[in-house]
Amino acid sequence: MSNNKRNTGRPNKRRSNAGSKKAKAKTFQIPLKVSFLGGLNEIGKNMTLFEYDGDMVILDVGLAFPEPEMLGVDIVIPDFTYVERNKDKIKGILITHGHEDHIGGLAYLLKLMNKPVYGTPLTIGLIKGKLEEHGLLQQAELHEIEAGDRFQLGKFDIEAIHVNHSIPDALAFALTTEVGTVIHSGDLKIDTTPVDGRMIDLARFAELGEEGVLCYLADSTNAVKPGYSASESSVGDSFDRLFKDAGDRRIIVATFASNIHRVQQVVNQAVAAGRKVALSGRSMEHVMAVGQELGYLDVPEGLIIPLDQISRYNDDQLVLITTGSQGEPMSALSRMAFSDHRKVQVTPNDYVIISATAIPGNEKMVGRVVDELLKLGAEVVYERMYDIHVSGHANQEELKIMLGLIKPTYFLPVHGEQKHLQRHKELAERMGIPSENIIITDIGRTVEISDDGMRVAGTVPAGRVFVDGIGVGDVGNVVMRDRKRLAEDGIITIVVAMDNVSGEVVSGPDIITRGFVYVRESEDLIQTSQETAMWAIENCLNNDIRDWSTIKQRIRDEVSHVVYEETKRSPMILPIIMEV
Amino acid sequence: MSNNKRNTGRPNKRRSNAGSKKAKAKTFQIPLKVSFLGGLNEIGKNMTLFEYDGDMVILDVGLAFPEPEMLGVDIVIPDFTYVERNKDKIKGILITHGHEDHIGGLAYLLKLMNKPVYGTPLTIGLIKGKLEEHGLLQQAELHEIEAGDRFQLGKFDIEAIHVNHSIPDALAFALTTEVGTVIHSGDLKIDTTPVDGRMIDLARFAELGEEGVLCYLADSTNAVKPGYSASESSVGDSFDRLFKDAGDRRIIVATFASNIHRVQQVVNQAVAAGRKVALSGRSMEHVMAVGQELGYLDVPEGLIIPLDQISRYNDDQLVLITTGSQGEPMSALSRMAFSDHRKVQVTPNDYVIISATAIPGNEKMVGRVVDELLKLGAEVVYERMYDIHVSGHANQEELKIMLGLIKPTYFLPVHGEQKHLQRHKELAERMGIPSENIIITDIGRTVEISDDGMRVAGTVPAGRVFVDGIGVGDVGNVVMRDRKRLAEDGIITIVVAMDNVSGEVVSGPDIITRGFVYVRESEDLIQTSQETAMWAIENCLNNDIRDWSTIKQRIRDEVSHVVYEETKRSPMILPIIMEV
Repeated sequence: MSNNKRNTGRPNKRRSNAGSKKAKAKTFQIPLKVSFLGGLNEIGKNMTLFEYDGDMVILDVGLAFPEPEMLGVDIVIPDFTYVERNKDKIKGILITHGHEDHIGGLAYLLKLMNKPVYGTPLTIGLIKGKLEEHGLLQQAELHEIEAGDRFQLGKFDIEAIHVNHSIPDALAFALTTEVGTVIHSGDLKIDTTPVDGRMIDLARFAELGEEGVLCYLADSTNAVKPGYSASESSVGDSFDRLFKDAGDRRIIVATFASNIHRVQQVVNQAVAAGRKVALSGRSMEHVMAVGQELGYLDVPEGLIIPLDQISRYNDDQLVLITTGSQGEPMSALSRMAFSDHRKVQVTPNDYVIISATAIPGNEKMVGRVVDELLKLGAEVVYERMYDIHVSGHANQEELKIMLGLIKPTYFLPVHGEQKHLQRHKELAERMGIPSENIIITDIGRTVEISDDGMRVAGTVPAGRVFVDGIGVGDVGNVVMRDRKRLAEDGIITIVVAMDNVSGEVVSGPDIITRGFVYVRESEDLIQTSQETAMWAIENCLNNDIRDWSTIKQRIRDEVSHVVYEETKRSPMILPIIMEV
Repeated sequence: MSNNKRNTGRPNKRRSNAGSKKAKAKTFQIPLKVSFLGGLNEIGKNMTLFEYDGDMVILDVGLAFPEPEMLGVDIVIPDFTYVERNKDKIKGILITHGHEDHIGGLAYLLKLMNKPVYGTPLTIGLIKGKLEEHGLLQQAELHEIEAGDRFQLGKFDIEAIHVNHSIPDALAFALTTEVGTVIHSGDLKIDTTPVDGRMIDLARFAELGEEGVLCYLADSTNAVKPGYSASESSVGDSFDRLFKDAGDRRIIVATFASNIHRVQQVVNQAVAAGRKVALSGRSMEHVMAVGQELGYLDVPEGLIIPLDQISRYNDDQLVLITTGSQGEPMSALSRMAFSDHRKVQVTPNDYVIISATAIPGNEKMVGRVVDELLKLGAEVVYERMYDIHVSGHANQEELKIMLGLIKPTYFLPVHGEQKHLQRHKELAERMGIPSENIIITDIGRTVEISDDGMRVAGTVPAGRVFVDGIGVGDVGNVVMRDRKRLAEDGIITIVVAMDNVSGEVVSGPDIITRGFVYVRESEDLIQTSQETAMWAIENCLNNDIRDWSTIKQRIRDEVSHVVYEETKRSPMILPIIMEV
């Protein structure tokens, strides 16, 4: 579990895994339980819980980014209720790789329980950054492991296996108990020519497959894509062509900060072209620093210059690497496009390469950024115009190779929406796995695997917990419903002061609106609302209604009726009665 | 201008267009002005204004659908300020076809000025439906025209030319003045085998090209797509295969209601398969009724059954045609997917064909609908899985054919975002049109064409007018900013009653929040806010500050500071002081 053996793609300290074979011959009463807290029927917040004979191991604790209807929510994390309930059983947390959808919920979990975390040095490096933000770094128990490592967590024998993905040093895990060996793929692809030369350890998967794998849980993200995914290094060839095409223009490359191998290839091209490199975007700077420090990035001394020194160089001496490949409104590339970046002005002498594909939901934001860059006169290479991006997830033929090597008895497609899971199931069926040995399940479900077979055995609390600011879970459905209403039609506040003895109106009703109409042009409507509120109050008083919640309800009903008639809008109506 | 000659694709009453040729020889002092009120650097709300010697003609009055950040906005229409200012000059409104982005703003314009409207029978039929909703049908002056018709509007000689598009009976227009002939393409594609047999009138475009076209304004929507678009009738072949594949399952086809030729092909397949057809979705029912009434749809007697009679038939006797191909939350297909449709329950015996491509921004909504349908066990054919959709817009080779036939002196790419406009310009340059004869312009710009050449000659008021309920333009930037804030963090209302003589606090401050936090779990925070507000008020009073707007400002500052410290959120703070 040290940091300095990362260069061998193939693990060297291997033990025989015969235990699992032997295990299959015996009969066990205790089933292995797999519970899903995220990552099924959704993209993101991946989290799986393995339980055997009173011991539990967590695999990944990710976050999801909020859907547009989750107003004001910053991030979404899994519901930890079930983990908290079983706090004492948790023996450790395995992390497959350092992407947000696998590590982004970890700080929130560690606040509830301090458990040992296991990941490769890059993964741990990225986790450290997050824990520091949350003030958890000192107490956290972080263990650097590398592919090939084996260790014990309670009754689980854990093995880390090297896989290829769009971030370096990603892992799959094999978890062996007396019931047998279960493999979780993490996120993977088969890259025969990865940038760091470390191909996925297919041989180890094959070996485990020969020894007998009880169940395989596998990444389904690209299960609808036929054929093979292209190698990360193919992007280098495209960069080579594009850098030549750019001529003496300045080059700006936008990509995911965590895709260190992509950044490495940009760096290589910059070196070859004799250009300096400047970084823009906080996460780009952070990941580059971590990557360089841990030796994942090979950057010549003096190549990288601070962004505020770019004016000292000619355009043909510069490459900027920036965040914002998803068109995120506050990102560096977006600020450049909308002429809002303090240090970078885009001109017709810029050649912009967006080295990413828009994640579903982001297409329009990316489109806007491209348009604004074009309006500034820059040339923009984007989308599928050239081979400037490859996915980090396996296509169908790769998924089939994995299934063919691992030959699991049972199969659980994970990491994907329903269409991905179903297609992955179909692929497995075509590979000869019987339909009844495959389950498409959902978050909040527990799957039990025993000698009797595999079945959905129950449910556990699971769902979306909203993080808004520093509040975790304090923004729920009621708040969200109010925000939606406020967002659509605003609010009309009606305040009236009433004598708490006589019940007479002392002052008001006053009408204050926000987000409803431009008030100066709607004075009639405001006056009508005021009169309607007054009428509703008087009507109550005349009928001897003194109960204030009834009076408020009447005000709300009457005003909302009048407003809808006049505008066809339904703002929130908030009557407030002050006792004086 | 009658309704009964629609079957000839090629117009028969043609006059010589030699006028424009002769015109080019003379020298004119008066330029032709083209002003853009929509459709450039955006998709939607197409509207162009042609002006010559004191006469004006409008081409299309479309709407755009709101972007996600336009909270509560129903539709977006062009700014009509410039048209209102020139009300008396407007001689007529030409409509190219019946899509929302070409007719959706018309009712709002006709409310401001009653001008004659010209379109083909289907276009007029669809416009009638809209005007009826707005109570404008009686007074409106609607003229049915057909391809080949020529007529005068002030100093403009107008000619309607048949084009292919994803709605039947679409037109391009040639507008001839003494300066020469200008052609506006509307939205078009070249379909050599359209479903109604009426191919785009390429011969007439060629003829005009030979006679001399001063300027061509052309649809750029698909200018980034290479090659040719597929023919609408190719979708029929796909339907044929899929209907066989469906076997004895019920078939549900989702498509755009306005794509009458697509619906016709589904109808044809239903007839061939001996299945009845039921319609779901208000716009589907409406367009089908208009289409049948005007003879655009050929539907055998008794084929269509009411949706509430589907239970009388077996699954293999049914085809449902539904709206919702964009995954719109309230659409019929979406309601079916989320088991919320009153008349249709989706089962594993359903075969769903989504015959459309997701419009940018809708990808995620469509994805969710697909996922839910899959969870119900239905088979779903979607996206580019099969050739189940073709675009209504010309790809690059078609755009080049049009340019090659029309051979315009000047070229204005329209209908598209910047990337589309720029690519269209490049295509035109490669076709030999000099760079200086092509202008990529924007909404709010006036382009002048005269013997001296073409140039951007000025600006006109243009922009987005938000329609929310029945309010047009009463929701502007301030309201939108408030809604955004309300949406993200909610509102804290702080009410206090103060004696208007002594200035003492009589009651309160009371704190009422909406969309901020779940109050029961945040009592401490509410109490802290209350104490802070009280402290701020007392502090003011102690310092002899009696000005209520200052007191309100202090309350706002102090509470917002405390709330941010505690929650890292910035709700709207609304202090209200009641005088008693």
